[in-house]
Amino acid sequence: MSLDETAQKPHDRLGAYLACDLERVNALIRERMASEHAPRIPEVTAHLIEAGGKRLRPMLTLAAARLCGYDGDHHIRLAATVEFIHTATLLHDDVVDESRQRRGRPTANLLWDNKSSVLVGDYLFARAFQLMVEPGSLRVLEILSNASATIAEGEVLQLTAAQDLRTDEGTYLKVVRGKTAALFSAATEAGAVLAGADDTEVEALFTYGDALGIAFQIADDLLDYGGTTAAIGKNVGDDFRERKLTLPVIKTVAKADEAERAFWRRVIEKGDQREGDLEQALRLMARHRAMEATRDDALGWAERAKQALVALPAHDLRDMLADLADYVVARVN
Amino acid sequence: MSLDETAQKPHDRLGAYLACDLERVNALIRERMASEHAPRIPEVTAHLIEAGGKRLRPMLTLAAARLCGYDGDHHIRLAATVEFIHTATLLHDDVVDESRQRRGRPTANLLWDNKSSVLVGDYLFARAFQLMVEPGSLRVLEILSNASATIAEGEVLQLTAAQDLRTDEGTYLKVVRGKTAALFSAATEAGAVLAGADDTEVEALFTYGDALGIAFQIADDLLDYGGTTAAIGKNVGDDFRERKLTLPVIKTVAKADEAERAFWRRVIEKGDQREGDLEQALRLMARHRAMEATRDDALGWAERAKQALVALPAHDLRDMLADLADYVVARVN
Repeated sequence: MSLDETAQKPHDRLGAYLACDLERVNALIRERMASEHAPRIPEVTAHLIEAGGKRLRPMLTLAAARLCGYDGDHHIRLAATVEFIHTATLLHDDVVDESRQRRGRPTANLLWDNKSSVLVGDYLFARAFQLMVEPGSLRVLEILSNASATIAEGEVLQLTAAQDLRTDEGTYLKVVRGKTAALFSAATEAGAVLAGADDTEVEALFTYGDALGIAFQIADDLLDYGGTTAAIGKNVGDDFRERKLTLPVIKTVAKADEAERAFWRRVIEKGDQREGDLEQALRLMARHRAMEATRDDALGWAERAKQALVALPAHDLRDMLADLADYVVARVN
Repeated sequence: MSLDETAQKPHDRLGAYLACDLERVNALIRERMASEHAPRIPEVTAHLIEAGGKRLRPMLTLAAARLCGYDGDHHIRLAATVEFIHTATLLHDDVVDESRQRRGRPTANLLWDNKSSVLVGDYLFARAFQLMVEPGSLRVLEILSNASATIAEGEVLQLTAAQDLRTDEGTYLKVVRGKTAALFSAATEAGAVLAGADDTEVEALFTYGDALGIAFQIADDLLDYGGTTAAIGKNVGDDFRERKLTLPVIKTVAKADEAERAFWRRVIEKGDQREGDLEQALRLMARHRAMEATRDDALGWAERAKQALVALPAHDLRDMLADLADYVVARVN
């Protein structure tokens, strides 16, 4: 890919537009992830935070605040808060999922141990809460503490729903809203509230973040069955091997005949997976056109995200956010 | 033990004095630990929260607020906050320590799994932050978010320091301040700040909580080598088997000759423990009078806790807090 093409990506255009802010966010993250007493903390955190994360969530906060005319300093703190919450959930997710790879590198639980991932994750949560208190806005605190509860609730729900074939699209959406969209929508809403935006703008940015997060997660779940290891930074079929009931499978199971249901019961509910099962799963998804239907859902959520932006004033950032919504689902097109 | 003797315990006298407040705290805890979407959450939480916890930390918040003349409602929320933070750390601790027993019952990680303990702990942390935002006091938020970071930092420090024979009493104190005293002192300080107490009173209650927490943890670490399973709700020698370098061992290692150091290196650093090693550890502690020295430290911290209370106005609650400081170390006398 040429440099020109790279420069065209909406994510990179946002990054270029917000470069000064992002530099300050990164400096604040490095400052706050330090620990005087426990050197293990910055080691583990640096492994993840420096590992080429896209800083998507902090960019959403910065963009929302700027788009609503904010010219103070506190959006830097909120953006770092959002990245800390995200990093903490990644550390805990990798323990829960027993993952071995993240962003193309070995996970912290593999390099150190589960204990370090649990406790350093807790530390980052606490640092996030310290940071979010600093702007002194109770409304922002409500938004971000509510999002934290929704995230954890979504993760627990996933734990019990993931391997249960009765899980339907409604439950899937609840899980996705929790584990992914809650932080996206809190990131954009908190930026708008910090900027003193009016209710219409705040609601528009909340709705944008919510729909963007859902589109993003559906695309991610689709790529797990259709992407390449290089593109997704983990192995194709990881969700299948971890017996996670994601949207492509839910749609396939909904159309399954008795023999197919027996297959899904064996591989997902019982976890008895054999050579060739992933290929069989892919064949069943193709038979019921589940990949296409899932992709249509992702595109629909991206469209809703763009629609929400109409309520906001014309602004370069507004256009970039709209392009970003297209971009997160373009991966699956 | 007769009912009369029970009624004499300072903990029970505090509980009786604060009975109405505590009832409201318990109701709020039950209300907020619910989850509309994920029934696993209240199951796990109830297992721990209903398991006869002493509600010591929420009582400290209630007592501090009342002692400083508070007559509002928000101390109930802060007390529930403190109990949620405590419960979340217990859930994560049991995962990190691979514990099998807590408060005389099987741990949540044993009854469900590590995943549930990690994620339900995260949920309780988030619920705690939601609750602490509600009183609308930024100073209280600073106190409690700082305490959360100190707790996590202390836990990580313990992870790296616990099996390292170079760990000295200074490091031990940092770990104890983090994992135990930070929440005690935040509980008392937040209660005082909520009540609008002056700086002297706030500082006095902070110092009381800090010293009480340290006395409490030292006593706990001593009981691990000298108590009975019934009294401590876990097995005697658990810290030894988990290779945790606590104060009795640190004091014994500091006086060890070469042969004794080789013993400690084998059982703590290398974790190569054999039949009779716990008994040998106890003999070495006796030889160097480490139990007596540890008990003296605990008594010293209890004394400091009581001294701090002198700056506060005369009040039944002040006397009960003083008695409580004696009580937490009376277990080791």
